[in-house]
Amino acid sequence: MSIRENFTLYIHQLQDQICAAIENAGGGGKFQEDKWERPGGGGGKTRIIRGDEVFEKGGVNTSVVHGKLPASMQERLGVKHEDFFACGISLVIHPTNPHVPTVHANFRFFELYDDKGTAVDRWFGGGADLTPYYYQQEDVVHFHKSLKAAADPFGAELYPLYKKECDHYFFNTHRNENRGVGGMFFDYLKADDRRDDLFWLDFTKSIGDAFVPAYIPIVERRKHDAFLEKHVEWQQIRRGRYVEFNLIHDRGTLFGLKTNGRIESILMSLPALARWEYDHQPQSGSDEALLLEALKHRDWINDPL
Amino acid sequence: MSIRENFTLYIHQLQDQICAAIENAGGGGKFQEDKWERPGGGGGKTRIIRGDEVFEKGGVNTSVVHGKLPASMQERLGVKHEDFFACGISLVIHPTNPHVPTVHANFRFFELYDDKGTAVDRWFGGGADLTPYYYQQEDVVHFHKSLKAAADPFGAELYPLYKKECDHYFFNTHRNENRGVGGMFFDYLKADDRRDDLFWLDFTKSIGDAFVPAYIPIVERRKHDAFLEKHVEWQQIRRGRYVEFNLIHDRGTLFGLKTNGRIESILMSLPALARWEYDHQPQSGSDEALLLEALKHRDWINDPL
Repeated sequence: MSIRENFTLYIHQLQDQICAAIENAGGGGKFQEDKWERPGGGGGKTRIIRGDEVFEKGGVNTSVVHGKLPASMQERLGVKHEDFFACGISLVIHPTNPHVPTVHANFRFFELYDDKGTAVDRWFGGGADLTPYYYQQEDVVHFHKSLKAAADPFGAELYPLYKKECDHYFFNTHRNENRGVGGMFFDYLKADDRRDDLFWLDFTKSIGDAFVPAYIPIVERRKHDAFLEKHVEWQQIRRGRYVEFNLIHDRGTLFGLKTNGRIESILMSLPALARWEYDHQPQSGSDEALLLEALKHRDWINDPL
Repeated sequence: MSIRENFTLYIHQLQDQICAAIENAGGGGKFQEDKWERPGGGGGKTRIIRGDEVFEKGGVNTSVVHGKLPASMQERLGVKHEDFFACGISLVIHPTNPHVPTVHANFRFFELYDDKGTAVDRWFGGGADLTPYYYQQEDVVHFHKSLKAAADPFGAELYPLYKKECDHYFFNTHRNENRGVGGMFFDYLKADDRRDDLFWLDFTKSIGDAFVPAYIPIVERRKHDAFLEKHVEWQQIRRGRYVEFNLIHDRGTLFGLKTNGRIESILMSLPALARWEYDHQPQSGSDEALLLEALKHRDWINDPL
């Protein structure tokens, strides 16, 4: 089985596994699936859950597309080959309870072909990051430790490297503020003299496999926590920042919007409700102010807040 | 009095006039003012109203800034002069009642100087546009007729020209949908062989003066209309589209965010609450579907929906 076939199979298994785990932790809501086709070749499966007691809104999407690369994307990727294949899984889960963090993950594979159809380049990318509304050390440390444990067998340098890339990427420059507490993020993982394609395939699958055990225990621990309207308002304000990141900075979102991607699959990442209050500042010493303290780069394994 | 002094005086008078008219039409809420200074020179007055019975959230801002133009902005404007002066008024009003449209307007002046401080270039820009949640022919026609009446004394060609620019500009390309029902929008209004700077000063002031009589009668007519939770939800979905336009496409917003503008003054344009529902489609024949019909370019004076 080719790497491409292997990973295509994997993302669909992972989609099933994650949807089942979310439904299992949820309040009885079920994912609904929309299958779509891409005019240029391929298509995807968008799965959405909404209005669930535990999960207000979430999407777990896979897509497997191929065809001719638009000139704009050749330029962006710095490549000269026209024929491409790409597949990936992308998910965002926005829970109902403000004590349960939002989570995002994606895992993807890209391959380029010459005129004869021979693969000439390929790489993996992806990662997972957590966006809490209220800070719980236990949750953040668990999330990071889970990702680290999945990465460490492939090299002790990988978690710190991709943890830093995640911090760098999920940053609202216009607010000088992290989107959340990070996780891991990597891109352009290619064969080199030490590591072949199979190595990066296995690495990416290892991080993908870590998603459910990294996130679901946090949901289980917090989903029955009591909350008030004021906690929901703070959650909505923070979700406004999530919208700002996705619409202003997120490369994948912007690229999708500018290349006529399937709009509803791209924007499924947005929360059900987001709030903007002029110059909102949490009270000093409050739980809300503590969250802002947590939105700073730090070593969550050895020196958590 | 120089044109620059004249227009600076004007935008502050207009700010007072518009804030008074909004408060007068409102439910007792008052604007609160934040004065801010720009490190490079000048500053502004941000006035915010919120939680009013009639106006959920609104901002009416003026700024008067000067200094050295960053290289990025020289490039954007296609100019080689470093010293600049800019002043303007910018407003967005988001009413509480879904039957009252959101409105946006701005009016601004820009001047460039050579090394000796002599003005070498100047222009006016601005406009006003309306974003209803439910379509009312009377309101949309009144808004457009008010702007046309203010423009017509300066040349019958101006309203159609700038009406078209408005349609072109306030367009969510990624949704293939207008933001609202338009109005007028113009930029780089400069002296030519037929019209001098004073002409464009008077023109811009005429459109500025038209704002209150174009918008406030619509507020008065609709502010007591009954509405249900489902109307508010639709308003929130449409406000999501407003957020998408401002964060993805609006040149002023993006430029402000990328050049360290005062973030809270820039993002005051965002609504208090915005909603995203996966693949939301209004029922055929509903009032919500009628609004979508109205979000298409049309001649609102001679051929309204």
